[in-house]
Amino acid sequence: MNELLSTQARSTGASVIKEILQLTKQPEIISFAGGMPNPQTFPARELAQIASDVILNHHHQALQYGPTEGVEMFRSEMLEWLSDFGLNRGLRETAVTTASQQAIDLAGRTLLDPGDVVFCGLPTYLGAVQAFQGLRADCRGIPLEENGMDLETLRSEIREARKEGKQPKFIYVIPDFQNPTGITMCEDKRKQLVRIAEQEGIYVFEDSPYMGLRYHGDHLPPIQTYDQDGYVFTVFSLSKILAAGMRLGLLVGEEEVIGQMVKIKRGVDVCTPPLTQHIAGNWLHQVDIYDHLSRLRGTYVENLESMLEALDKYLPNGEGVTWTSPNGGLFIWVELPKHLDTSELFYRATEEKVAFVPGEHFFVDGSGSHTMRLCFSEGNPKKIDEGIHRLGNLLADCL
Amino acid sequence: MNELLSTQARSTGASVIKEILQLTKQPEIISFAGGMPNPQTFPARELAQIASDVILNHHHQALQYGPTEGVEMFRSEMLEWLSDFGLNRGLRETAVTTASQQAIDLAGRTLLDPGDVVFCGLPTYLGAVQAFQGLRADCRGIPLEENGMDLETLRSEIREARKEGKQPKFIYVIPDFQNPTGITMCEDKRKQLVRIAEQEGIYVFEDSPYMGLRYHGDHLPPIQTYDQDGYVFTVFSLSKILAAGMRLGLLVGEEEVIGQMVKIKRGVDVCTPPLTQHIAGNWLHQVDIYDHLSRLRGTYVENLESMLEALDKYLPNGEGVTWTSPNGGLFIWVELPKHLDTSELFYRATEEKVAFVPGEHFFVDGSGSHTMRLCFSEGNPKKIDEGIHRLGNLLADCL
Repeated sequence: MNELLSTQARSTGASVIKEILQLTKQPEIISFAGGMPNPQTFPARELAQIASDVILNHHHQALQYGPTEGVEMFRSEMLEWLSDFGLNRGLRETAVTTASQQAIDLAGRTLLDPGDVVFCGLPTYLGAVQAFQGLRADCRGIPLEENGMDLETLRSEIREARKEGKQPKFIYVIPDFQNPTGITMCEDKRKQLVRIAEQEGIYVFEDSPYMGLRYHGDHLPPIQTYDQDGYVFTVFSLSKILAAGMRLGLLVGEEEVIGQMVKIKRGVDVCTPPLTQHIAGNWLHQVDIYDHLSRLRGTYVENLESMLEALDKYLPNGEGVTWTSPNGGLFIWVELPKHLDTSELFYRATEEKVAFVPGEHFFVDGSGSHTMRLCFSEGNPKKIDEGIHRLGNLLADCL
Repeated sequence: MNELLSTQARSTGASVIKEILQLTKQPEIISFAGGMPNPQTFPARELAQIASDVILNHHHQALQYGPTEGVEMFRSEMLEWLSDFGLNRGLRETAVTTASQQAIDLAGRTLLDPGDVVFCGLPTYLGAVQAFQGLRADCRGIPLEENGMDLETLRSEIREARKEGKQPKFIYVIPDFQNPTGITMCEDKRKQLVRIAEQEGIYVFEDSPYMGLRYHGDHLPPIQTYDQDGYVFTVFSLSKILAAGMRLGLLVGEEEVIGQMVKIKRGVDVCTPPLTQHIAGNWLHQVDIYDHLSRLRGTYVENLESMLEALDKYLPNGEGVTWTSPNGGLFIWVELPKHLDTSELFYRATEEKVAFVPGEHFFVDGSGSHTMRLCFSEGNPKKIDEGIHRLGNLLADCL
């Protein structure tokens, strides 16, 4: 009955990453291929107590249908936290989503017709590209510099797209500790990006799941804080800083575009579960989020430094092997000499009992075959040292 | 920046029902306009205990990302319950959704291209029609008889659509105590409907949120139990029988079509919250669902009978005023003489401090202006009697 499928279903492939992760599940493999938060960072005891209280005392709201735009109390608590980062918005400029991925889908459905152009990092988060491509958008990659997207290229690519008669709709950016590279966009580029959006009359879609995960240096304000005219909308996710399994994000932006996304969301799922919103809202209200974040950063920064030390120790630096040194997030990005293909290397690596994600999957233009993503969220310093040792031996062998 | 919106965003209207419900929120109004479950039916104490246990003991799974197709334990428990209704399927033939509405959206995205034809009841659930129309499908209404869809008309409408060069994709049906009419499709029509789907090579989308809410008579097997060749897929929701605020449903059907929906769902939200799935799965495992359902039916059947009695007592029967007498669900459907317009009546009714949903919103062809939906889930026999008394006075006045 395949002839009954929609164009979208026919053009949506199986998840490559899922297949890759499947291969890394043998217990002896030290895997840097994942991208999930470390479950030790979930505040289980606090959440258990709060969940029980919420259900006992607020079940008329928490177990009932809720507004499509989300539970007000949760949105207020999020806004209060976000105001610490210089973002001051009102309730009507927010909507709750089932984490970042739903915001990606809603933004796509609200703004994209087949053929419309989206600009994204080269490389960028695969799940966003797949969602936009599922809507048959034309995703165009903009190279990353060490302080973020190459904005000169972005400008010329926008002009190029218009010349082709295409409609550019938005620029998709992960400003902090980007997935997959760990790169952070500097303040100057944030300001410039907003100016480009204003001049060109297109949106910036700021995807910000890692903002709370800074281990070194000062926080940078969200791109949206530089925006006066409503060209930037942002999704802040709780997946990496509270619990991925609650699936909660907050869209923030100009009232009209957020309202359009809420209209679409009504037909998509009526509302994100009020139960999880009430739990997270009460958690934000009751705990000191900065205490929580500092505990969580303690876990991650130790892993990050262990991985950086091990890379220094075991990888043949100077032979065209380089890597990023991020100030936060979950990922380190490794580039090898161009003649090496990390998709081929991946199978040899699993034989040597170490795993990563081949970088080419993050490039919309099919390049990047000499790159790889390493995630340091799981494991401990000893395991990380051993895993990178295995990887170093393999690379020494190849070079 | 309106010119940046997608065709879908431009063609998605605000929710009429939401605006109607807004008008019924004055405290003196006795409202039969809602459609939500009665919060007194939520097993809050059980769920509070289970939520706390799940988070303390299974946070590595419950608070982490989960598989897109859903948490296995929850799917197994649902399948075990469904087998009591004669539906025997395996895990690979299931996928968890964020309740029925997400299944509606996923089915639409998996099967519909702009212009494709969907058949639905005349009247039918508005939220489904809006989702399909958002994808620019062509929704065609099939009149309902007292035992379900008029299948002769369905056959000829399918032929008609093909003659026009249109591609019919599926028939959308709510088999038990349909929203908005309360009508149940009889066993013979269920069998015939499957035969039509097989002969025509199109799907049946069975939306089954009310199956567990039967107050009189014997359960009828889901339409899918008559299907040998994979033409029927079904979503079973927990919104009306456990807690709407958990937003949980289970799609069941042939492996290939379910797998296609899962592929789309990955880009939509990665997964439905594992937290709510673990809570509901453990609840199904630990409690006797039939004890729970019998308590819940106790609440609803009392309201249903009070409303039927009050309708008999206060409504001018015999003057072209008729209503359904459902065996379950949450709704009674009233038809008035054709010259009366319930949308006009609605404003007078709110002045008389009683409310309903004007029926025309449930008709894809713009008919039904003389009909109304009454929901009996809220309130108690005394309030229901008083509300129907007010409605009866108003109608007596109009006739």
